[in-house]
Amino acid sequence: MNLIQEGTVTTPAGFAAGTAASGVKYVGQLDLALIFSSYDCITSAVFTRNQVVAAPVIVDRETVKNGNQHVRAIVANSGNANACTGAPGLDNAYQMQHLAANALGCQADQVLILSTGVIGVQLPMARIASGINEAARKLARANGKQAAQAIMTTDTHPKHMAVQVTLGGGEVTIGGMAKGAGMIHPNMATLLGVFTTDAVVAPNLLDRMLQTAVNQSFNRISVDGDTSTNDTVLLLANGASEIRIVEEEDISQFQEALNTVCVSLAKMIVRDGEGASKFVEINVSGTPDDTAAHAIASTIATSPLVKTAFAGSDANWGRILAAAGRAGVCFDQSQVTLWIGLESATELQLVADGTPVEYLESEAAAIFAEPAFKIMLNLGAGPGTTTVWTSDLSHEYVTINADYRT
Amino acid sequence: MNLIQEGTVTTPAGFAAGTAASGVKYVGQLDLALIFSSYDCITSAVFTRNQVVAAPVIVDRETVKNGNQHVRAIVANSGNANACTGAPGLDNAYQMQHLAANALGCQADQVLILSTGVIGVQLPMARIASGINEAARKLARANGKQAAQAIMTTDTHPKHMAVQVTLGGGEVTIGGMAKGAGMIHPNMATLLGVFTTDAVVAPNLLDRMLQTAVNQSFNRISVDGDTSTNDTVLLLANGASEIRIVEEEDISQFQEALNTVCVSLAKMIVRDGEGASKFVEINVSGTPDDTAAHAIASTIATSPLVKTAFAGSDANWGRILAAAGRAGVCFDQSQVTLWIGLESATELQLVADGTPVEYLESEAAAIFAEPAFKIMLNLGAGPGTTTVWTSDLSHEYVTINADYRT
Repeated sequence: MNLIQEGTVTTPAGFAAGTAASGVKYVGQLDLALIFSSYDCITSAVFTRNQVVAAPVIVDRETVKNGNQHVRAIVANSGNANACTGAPGLDNAYQMQHLAANALGCQADQVLILSTGVIGVQLPMARIASGINEAARKLARANGKQAAQAIMTTDTHPKHMAVQVTLGGGEVTIGGMAKGAGMIHPNMATLLGVFTTDAVVAPNLLDRMLQTAVNQSFNRISVDGDTSTNDTVLLLANGASEIRIVEEEDISQFQEALNTVCVSLAKMIVRDGEGASKFVEINVSGTPDDTAAHAIASTIATSPLVKTAFAGSDANWGRILAAAGRAGVCFDQSQVTLWIGLESATELQLVADGTPVEYLESEAAAIFAEPAFKIMLNLGAGPGTTTVWTSDLSHEYVTINADYRT
Repeated sequence: MNLIQEGTVTTPAGFAAGTAASGVKYVGQLDLALIFSSYDCITSAVFTRNQVVAAPVIVDRETVKNGNQHVRAIVANSGNANACTGAPGLDNAYQMQHLAANALGCQADQVLILSTGVIGVQLPMARIASGINEAARKLARANGKQAAQAIMTTDTHPKHMAVQVTLGGGEVTIGGMAKGAGMIHPNMATLLGVFTTDAVVAPNLLDRMLQTAVNQSFNRISVDGDTSTNDTVLLLANGASEIRIVEEEDISQFQEALNTVCVSLAKMIVRDGEGASKFVEINVSGTPDDTAAHAIASTIATSPLVKTAFAGSDANWGRILAAAGRAGVCFDQSQVTLWIGLESATELQLVADGTPVEYLESEAAAIFAEPAFKIMLNLGAGPGTTTVWTSDLSHEYVTINADYRT
């Protein structure tokens, strides 16, 4: 697997993108993107589990319901989520789908839609319509990065990448882009992810591989515990490479590459989380099963007291244990061990048998003062294990969210 | 029921308090309290449900295990939680119990202990010992307020009250004190609550009444979603009034008074939450049952996006609906209505049938700009209902928790 420099969703063969500054977000900022495939795509999708879902999610679920194998395009806008907008919002979502289909010369059920931004405000359809027409006129393979820019909300930079995988039959490419920043949490947050590949993949296999990749990436990150009404991850396989993924060896190589792209973009989202100044990996092990480990890691990752301690570079492990203890998983506190460390350096043990060991507070503080570090909690009660990634809770987070209306 | 001006835990007959500045917290600040009853007390207790529990919780559970009817005293310290301190910490907790018993001339199993403060540091036992002796020398009925001061951590003021209830047989008094500030969440947060009464109450009845009062008060408040290792609520009934609570009418009057004291102290804790500038009542109704309503209200009350919107006086109802949607309760978003309002003023409807209604943004913002307001969410799917109280997530919260080690 090779990382492709400056790779995007249009790096795989047969994909193009066009963008526009339609005026939905701020005047002059890209806020509308079209992704177009020259060939019909097998499509897989993962949606938010929130009970309150935005109109685009309703429309996309409908569009991919029967294993849609003819998708040609995605139309995405930022600045307005078209969520909690009732029947008029649903009409607008269908209209957006039709407008894109008309502009691109395909059928409405060949278009998926994505929206992100403010909740509860109707889409300005005249702007959306002219934005779609402009973006369609600009379709080009070179516009992948612009598309990643157009879906940003409070993100500070576009997030995209692509990798090339050498399989038995030849080379295939996977591209991806994502936006995140706020409302980021397992299942999956205000997160839009678009992945493209020129491989030929059977629908069921594509579904399975996307779900596996999402479980290892976007479902393991948390910025603030809030999941959103619009979370959507799409994977389009247009088959342009004519390389079929059938053999076990090829499947496993492709899966690994897809995981890599998803995990990389997920980590980019955490690093660029609203107000984030720290990137923290939380490893939990020694639980009865992986689900229990995830419950504990997720509770630690969303604890305001833990996250403010991260922000303050305070290796306040008591808060970590207290958060673990309220995750709804039974364990014996006298079996707990806790280590902290940097990516590739000696680890420092803070707790053994549920009791603080002797260590230098200055060494612990030095680790927590780094921009990236990890904590390893073992509960000594089984083979369960997980890893999640999170950020700190800073003043900047409060500033962004007390002032910015999402 | 009459509110007693400046009432405390020593307002009921037969209770006295003594305090000391032992040096555990800061030099010269009260950090140790003894509450002493001249008569044996029937005792009820509610403890944290956190899996990680502090040594005092282990000792108290043991002490009240068989329905202890002979409790005479409580010894409490602030500045050190004696949590995550292993076997030495447990020894220290037992020693604290014995020291208090010796100083007060009773048996060790007649003493309950409370600790709050930093986690993971051993108690400085010499200071605790001299503090206990000093507090015992100062025992007086007038020291109830000082006791409430001595258990404070990041609280900005002592929290205490007392009420008098006229029953069939005469008057009884209920007193209470509590500390909170951080780690406040249902089940029950770094919350210490001590309640006293001079009524004569049977053990089982006392247990039932305390659990009822806690469910309506301390289990309905949330500052930051973090529950603690030390949460404890104690209720001591010393019978000094010789008024027995047996008749249904008396039971219901006493319960109402106990609820009032608990709810009042719970609300004081939220208003004095770390960095709190807003007091928000969240009413959720129209769920299949009360449990579902509580799950939704609690998710809204702990959502960082909702709480930062409170801080920013932004009536950002989309975040409220999005939080409701991820609470694990199924509902039909097209049935949702949302109102906001002040305590005793006209309410403003924001959402009907899951869709924003027309209202003046300035009117909504004016409500959210008040120091206290309420939000009323109805899901239109059943008789379930609940009320929880919470605060906003402010810069001050981050400052306190990035800098203060709990």
